[in-house]
Amino acid sequence: MLRIDLNCDVGESFGPYTIGADEELMDYITSANIACGGHAGDADVMDRTIKLAKEKKVAVGAHPGYPDIAGFGRRAIEYSPGEIYRMLIQQIGALQAFCHVNHVPLKHVKPHGAMYNQAARNRSLAEAIVQAVYDVDSDLILYGLPGSELIRAGNEAGLKTVSEAFADRTYLADGSLTPRNRPDALITDQQAAVQQVERMVNEGVVEAVNGEMVTLEADTVCVHGDGPHAVHFVHGLWRSLHEKEIKVASPGSP
Amino acid sequence: MLRIDLNCDVGESFGPYTIGADEELMDYITSANIACGGHAGDADVMDRTIKLAKEKKVAVGAHPGYPDIAGFGRRAIEYSPGEIYRMLIQQIGALQAFCHVNHVPLKHVKPHGAMYNQAARNRSLAEAIVQAVYDVDSDLILYGLPGSELIRAGNEAGLKTVSEAFADRTYLADGSLTPRNRPDALITDQQAAVQQVERMVNEGVVEAVNGEMVTLEADTVCVHGDGPHAVHFVHGLWRSLHEKEIKVASPGSP
Amino acid sequence: MLRIDLNCDVGESFGPYTIGADEELMDYITSANIACGGHAGDADVMDRTIKLAKEKKVAVGAHPGYPDIAGFGRRAIEYSPGEIYRMLIQQIGALQAFCHVNHVPLKHVKPHGAMYNQAARNRSLAEAIVQAVYDVDSDLILYGLPGSELIRAGNEAGLKTVSEAFADRTYLADGSLTPRNRPDALITDQQAAVQQVERMVNEGVVEAVNGEMVTLEADTVCVHGDGPHAVHFVHGLWRSLHEKEIKVASPGSP
Amino acid sequence: MLRIDLNCDVGESFGPYTIGADEELMDYITSANIACGGHAGDADVMDRTIKLAKEKKVAVGAHPGYPDIAGFGRRAIEYSPGEIYRMLIQQIGALQAFCHVNHVPLKHVKPHGAMYNQAARNRSLAEAIVQAVYDVDSDLILYGLPGSELIRAGNEAGLKTVSEAFADRTYLADGSLTPRNRPDALITDQQAAVQQVERMVNEGVVEAVNGEMVTLEADTVCVHGDGPHAVHFVHGLWRSLHEKEIKVASPGSP
Repeated sequence: MLRIDLNCDVGESFGPYTIGADEELMDYITSANIACGGHAGDADVMDRTIKLAKEKKVAVGAHPGYPDIAGFGRRAIEYSPGEIYRMLIQQIGALQAFCHVNHVPLKHVKPHGAMYNQAARNRSLAEAIVQAVYDVDSDLILYGLPGSELIRAGNEAGLKTVSEAFADRTYLADGSLTPRNRPDALITDQQAAVQQVERMVNEGVVEAVNGEMVTLEADTVCVHGDGPHAVHFVHGLWRSLHEKEIKVASPGSP
Repeated sequence: MLRIDLNCDVGESFGPYTIGADEELMDYITSANIACGGHAGDADVMDRTIKLAKEKKVAVGAHPGYPDIAGFGRRAIEYSPGEIYRMLIQQIGALQAFCHVNHVPLKHVKPHGAMYNQAARNRSLAEAIVQAVYDVDSDLILYGLPGSELIRAGNEAGLKTVSEAFADRTYLADGSLTPRNRPDALITDQQAAVQQVERMVNEGVVEAVNGEMVTLEADTVCVHGDGPHAVHFVHGLWRSLHEKEIKVASPGSP
Repeated sequence: MLRIDLNCDVGESFGPYTIGADEELMDYITSANIACGGHAGDADVMDRTIKLAKEKKVAVGAHPGYPDIAGFGRRAIEYSPGEIYRMLIQQIGALQAFCHVNHVPLKHVKPHGAMYNQAARNRSLAEAIVQAVYDVDSDLILYGLPGSELIRAGNEAGLKTVSEAFADRTYLADGSLTPRNRPDALITDQQAAVQQVERMVNEGVVEAVNGEMVTLEADTVCVHGDGPHAVHFVHGLWRSLHEKEIKVASPGSP
Repeated sequence: MLRIDLNCDVGESFGPYTIGADEELMDYITSANIACGGHAGDADVMDRTIKLAKEKKVAVGAHPGYPDIAGFGRRAIEYSPGEIYRMLIQQIGALQAFCHVNHVPLKHVKPHGAMYNQAARNRSLAEAIVQAVYDVDSDLILYGLPGSELIRAGNEAGLKTVSEAFADRTYLADGSLTPRNRPDALITDQQAAVQQVERMVNEGVVEAVNGEMVTLEADTVCVHGDGPHAVHFVHGLWRSLHEKEIKVASPGSP
């Protein structure tokens, strides 16, 4: 039976501020990437989100990011690999402690925003992230872009890795994501998004914006938890996959 | 053989800013209370300080505080017990992760500043701290003021606790510290400080400012790492204790 | 003709996070208390909110608060009067600069949350706030609770002050607000809230929760910008006041 | 009579942390670039430093930087020009308010660290800074690297600008600073540093590391306030200039 993981960035609220419909989404995802107080989240939000994931039987992962809440971790910042390594130990360590006190296993790590993007292309940054994940717990699964430096470095170090595709983003003929500033970067039609995911799972390909079919490894699909239609979209995707008898499950689960 | 622990708050530098002569002090203390990025410290400082303690064979403890770097965790802030609990999970969890990657055991927890003072008198705050320490690792040793709510709550919960005395602070006849705003709050004479510590260890008493002898439990003595004469002072205390054949060692060590 | 000011705390979004329906509300209020980057807001939000208030011809005021974004400035923090004074210079000064570059006059100051509450009872805190407002610009109007230390200190220093009442909060027989932890603290019925405001304006009284009529000075009514029904509520209040031919205008305007 | 300005970055302490011998240095400098709570400084430090500059008759300037205290504003961060503009309004506005309440004129602006370096080469960033300075007060003097985009944009916008040279840094044959990672980047010999400054003032040239004489505009010389020998160094430079009858004075002063 074919299978896919649906992952979502959650726990990105902060103090009095709410982002994302975490509670509703948890019914339709299988892996939760929980912010660690770096680009978003705080002690209260981490604890609350882990409890929610536990209740909904969603796999818990750490979602570390640059400690720039005002910029939501999306601004490129010139950190050294050593600073990145230690930033991850601090953030993953904090989330791990909340997992421990809630008796929930920590399963994976997915870097956020600028850290994720910079680690896709920058080898020494990718290695710093891989080393941090490995040192915290060498059984953690690393999420990243297919073909990225991050995935490559993870595999070489002996980490389990999963390659991430997107339901609502289009792809170029070289398999990379269409840059967000292009008008055709996003898929807004629910039906088209579902079809793209099904093809990824069934055939291991995606139709690029120029019409070519491109091979794309996709172990997990990232869905988004904010925006007015997020829950509706994710629910629809989840239902379609069930109808097509594609199993929706987190990596490594039975 | 009589014994005493010498503990010191360290790892309180931050980014470009340095506080405390951590490197020199580590030769003369047996327990290092390392700031966890709350009232002070950051990922780089935590990692560096744990490596230093490991090299010098000093027991590593967490020194969590209110997340108010500008106020150095000394300002009273109205947190709920639940917020305090989660604040500690985050901070101790982060330090614990640095201990893990450096292959160093985390041995104890000592709250900082306003958190320490408020937990001495406030039962529900004390219980929140005790619960957090217990949930992270029930083998951790809790440091606190003798007779405080914190020590009481720790003992009732089954935590190992150690009572902390001060070398350079004077005491009132009821065994409490002379408030800092009184002119006789501090002991500046090195000889007098050493004598006070010896008496605590040998006889379990301290001479209060009114001349009365007061019973005082002292498993550990807190020394200070900042100020122009800190290293000289701590070195002198350490040497005197050695000369008097009082063993200087961390709690629970052989 | 009778008149009243409708004021609202706005500009309390932060980085990627949104709070309050500022844009819709600006049609129905006459004074905007804009967060200054202390308890909420940031440079981008301050600039955007001032531009919005200018476009909608709403009087601009500073809404300084304790620099505790995670706690939204609602936690009591032990600041000295000197620290409070300088905190206000920094925050009001920043907002004033945005007013300057947008060619908008800064008209008033209303402290936020814990600062507002502590300054209502604490004389030296109230004096620090008054001094800061006076030193920045002695023509600024100070908003506060009727009968509070803040209003008293402001009047004695020669500041113009306006006393603030609430549309959706109930009052005790001594004229103070019913504490929020009491079940009867809030008025949720729109009609009752409008009646309370009309009585304040027409008769200078409010009906306390025990049924007594209490004298209450009310130059301005605070409305809230968050919550699912905020815009509907404020719009309704504004329309009712217009129908009753009560002029809705900021203090000092023609 | 020849003249030169000696400027120094000051007010870079933060909360409990001290950097720089501001008090001693103020006797030997003529322009103080005061941190604005961005990369360093806080409300208390700003106020204290302005009072000190006033007492010592040193010209007060704003020293805005990226809001990254942990990185001391030295890390490159990807801000948009609009974000830079608003960041400066907030920071300069805050410092300006402290100048106002202390009855001290704000005379100049010098960007810090990564902002200074990025604005030297990036035209749109330079324009954002120039626009912010101009909008706050078009009489403010802008400090920057000679020949930089910042100075160019400032001149084109009609701002007064002053070109800054360094006493303790060497230069390449193209007039740029020797990168810090080269072993010959710094001048550690006091005598050599003094000679370099005298030549800049007397002849408008500097001897590059390859021995060539390079034309260099130098209206002001930046000296550093931290490091063990800072005060001794600046005092020596100041005395030498006095002995050579070079007037040490801030730009625009009589």
